[in-house]
Amino acid sequence: MSFFSFELDPALAADPVFDLHRRGKMTMSATVPLTSRDDLSLAYTPGVARVCEAIAEDEDLYSDYTWVSNTVAVVTDGSAVLGLGNIGPKAAMPVMEGKSVLFKQFGGVDSIPIVLDTQDVEGIIATVKAMAPSFGGINLEDISAPRCFEIERRLDAELDIPVFHDDQHGTAVVTLAALRNAAKLLGRSFGDLRVVISGAGAAGVAITNTLIAAGVEGANMIIVDSRGIIHGERADLSGMKAGIAAATNVSGRTGGITEALIGADVLVGVSGGSIPEEALAGMAPGAIIFALANPTPEVHPTVAHKYAAIVATGRSDFPNQINNVLAFPGIFRGALDVKASTITDRMKVAAADAIAAIVADDLRPEAIVPSPLDPRVAPAVAAAVAAAAIEDGVARRAVAPEPAPVPASAPAPAAERQPA
Amino acid sequence: MSFFSFELDPALAADPVFDLHRRGKMTMSATVPLTSRDDLSLAYTPGVARVCEAIAEDEDLYSDYTWVSNTVAVVTDGSAVLGLGNIGPKAAMPVMEGKSVLFKQFGGVDSIPIVLDTQDVEGIIATVKAMAPSFGGINLEDISAPRCFEIERRLDAELDIPVFHDDQHGTAVVTLAALRNAAKLLGRSFGDLRVVISGAGAAGVAITNTLIAAGVEGANMIIVDSRGIIHGERADLSGMKAGIAAATNVSGRTGGITEALIGADVLVGVSGGSIPEEALAGMAPGAIIFALANPTPEVHPTVAHKYAAIVATGRSDFPNQINNVLAFPGIFRGALDVKASTITDRMKVAAADAIAAIVADDLRPEAIVPSPLDPRVAPAVAAAVAAAAIEDGVARRAVAPEPAPVPASAPAPAAERQPA
Repeated sequence: MSFFSFELDPALAADPVFDLHRRGKMTMSATVPLTSRDDLSLAYTPGVARVCEAIAEDEDLYSDYTWVSNTVAVVTDGSAVLGLGNIGPKAAMPVMEGKSVLFKQFGGVDSIPIVLDTQDVEGIIATVKAMAPSFGGINLEDISAPRCFEIERRLDAELDIPVFHDDQHGTAVVTLAALRNAAKLLGRSFGDLRVVISGAGAAGVAITNTLIAAGVEGANMIIVDSRGIIHGERADLSGMKAGIAAATNVSGRTGGITEALIGADVLVGVSGGSIPEEALAGMAPGAIIFALANPTPEVHPTVAHKYAAIVATGRSDFPNQINNVLAFPGIFRGALDVKASTITDRMKVAAADAIAAIVADDLRPEAIVPSPLDPRVAPAVAAAVAAAAIEDGVARRAVAPEPAPVPASAPAPAAERQPA
Repeated sequence: MSFFSFELDPALAADPVFDLHRRGKMTMSATVPLTSRDDLSLAYTPGVARVCEAIAEDEDLYSDYTWVSNTVAVVTDGSAVLGLGNIGPKAAMPVMEGKSVLFKQFGGVDSIPIVLDTQDVEGIIATVKAMAPSFGGINLEDISAPRCFEIERRLDAELDIPVFHDDQHGTAVVTLAALRNAAKLLGRSFGDLRVVISGAGAAGVAITNTLIAAGVEGANMIIVDSRGIIHGERADLSGMKAGIAAATNVSGRTGGITEALIGADVLVGVSGGSIPEEALAGMAPGAIIFALANPTPEVHPTVAHKYAAIVATGRSDFPNQINNVLAFPGIFRGALDVKASTITDRMKVAAADAIAAIVADDLRPEAIVPSPLDPRVAPAVAAAVAAAAIEDGVARRAVAPEPAPVPASAPAPAAERQPA
């Protein structure tokens, strides 16, 4: 056992990201006073017992008298973290803390990171179900495919709060928003687009389903996994991939990414790896390329621009960043505001359309999505998602509650400060 | 489904505790900036990946680069909440939120309330183990006896972070502190005290064990449960009660509370219900009575004063409030500071002695414990507990880390404010 504070490798110590992460990136605090005996007798015993009794008699009071209805758990088993793979729960925590503070910053959603010491599908499901009363929603994060599909499906079915795997649906929503605007800029009809998706993991599957829900012709879509084009004659498909084979590539095209891209209007890269330039050359004129692997896109934007009219990546140092931050805070804000029991396809498409609409009056090939920092995004997404939830009959409240209270330690308004 | 905000019963609406509890009592926030692209690229992708990689290669970095090592989960299944009994997880949440904000206010410990939708012992154990990497410690709360003993024992054994059931040990620690000072005031030797405990649930069992660890003569102790005095001839004892029968009442006294109190120096009431005045009349002169049931003590203080030289209750409206807030924040603060893997008997006794010492120079019969609001208490308890952990060889860090960072939204220091 070391009795001394560890010494970080000097090369690492020079990287500002470590200083920023010292002690983590978040904290919690009271929103009620706790400094007098009277304070304690209301916030704790004996006063708190009266609130417990009231909830015990009427469970509907739970959302009004606890923080739960504004709270989302960010849950991972660490099995598919960013581009790092299966690094486990502890190494995943910095990403989960980051997700939590982004939920709060952009969506006003209180969010708690939960990293799990099990990678067993039933164990994950049982654990999340057991802790579920503590939260208003569950955001699954960085859980590997294909396990993530079963876990999300089961939890969403078995819980009455929304369960949403952001690696699937956040990516799909922002991709849809970008594609809406790209098609609009190029004067293309959504239903006419021939879309190819490279990758059939969490993101690829969700993008496929969301684009179909939004009006892309599934029959004309081609999805490519690590073994090549997904088609009906392949014997190795099950689960989600079997569903994709049934819903896409009706012409039964076979081969790899090069064969898939012949005549394609849209390439969405969510596979990682690298797509050769020769393959892009087969795309139709006026193509759209979204190369979303981070940090290394499947196609470098400079190369992509030789074959596409509009290019997007997941990187902040190129135009058109497809960033899930555009989606998840507003989606949960809207879902929580109307106590939605789930997040439906209509809600996802509504979110995408709200994102697209933010820049729709000022569309340019290098500006097809808003900046993730644009403060108009999350409120617009939340409103659209809430309305869609009500239309879908999954809302349990029609009116958003008043804004969350200011923490007890917040600074006094300027007018009350004593002159220096 | 109601589309309208609920209407609280007017009688309840007049109670200020409901207004205070609206939307709950806590929130979380970032401790890092999140307003520019550069901010996001450090707090989230791509920068955060470098922190994940570093932790994946050296797990020791986990405590330095996440919030976890300063975080405690307050965990309940809602089976024994205050005096309300088995009201379940949702109705228990206001107590858990209260506990969490008290951990932060008094101990600087970030604390998250987790209410579980299972009351199965193995289910609770499995769930807490699965989520354990998310926290630096586990505070079990309001879980009914005797299940709480098995749950705490198993979790403490199977996890490398401290697991502490406050209803057991917080109560025991503060009771010990009060008894230390009461004995000192009356010039009594601890080892000579004849102690009777009314109640053999979570608190009664823990108080028994902690007093014995602190030097009270177990052989002379008598514990009374709902069926009467616990003695070796009873056939109905198992688990913790069997251990108590073996460690106490060596003379084999039988009967009820009246028989138990004959010649007793100390009565600790943790049974609820009511102890008849006639029973108190049998106590030795210069007796000490701690009647700790809330909100209704087993003996009213006015009655107790007829038979005892020193009286304490759990209520804030009488002198000598035995309040667990004196214990749990400092205990976890100290344990977390030295990354203790568990909370030992030595640590508990050290905590009690630190609490007692706060008022030791100004002892009066109506002031044998500090006020729960006394800011000297938690730091003193933390220091004593940390030292005890090191002595016991359960500490994994010798030096407390620097204080937690100020949240990003905190006001600027006064010297930097512009003149009005």
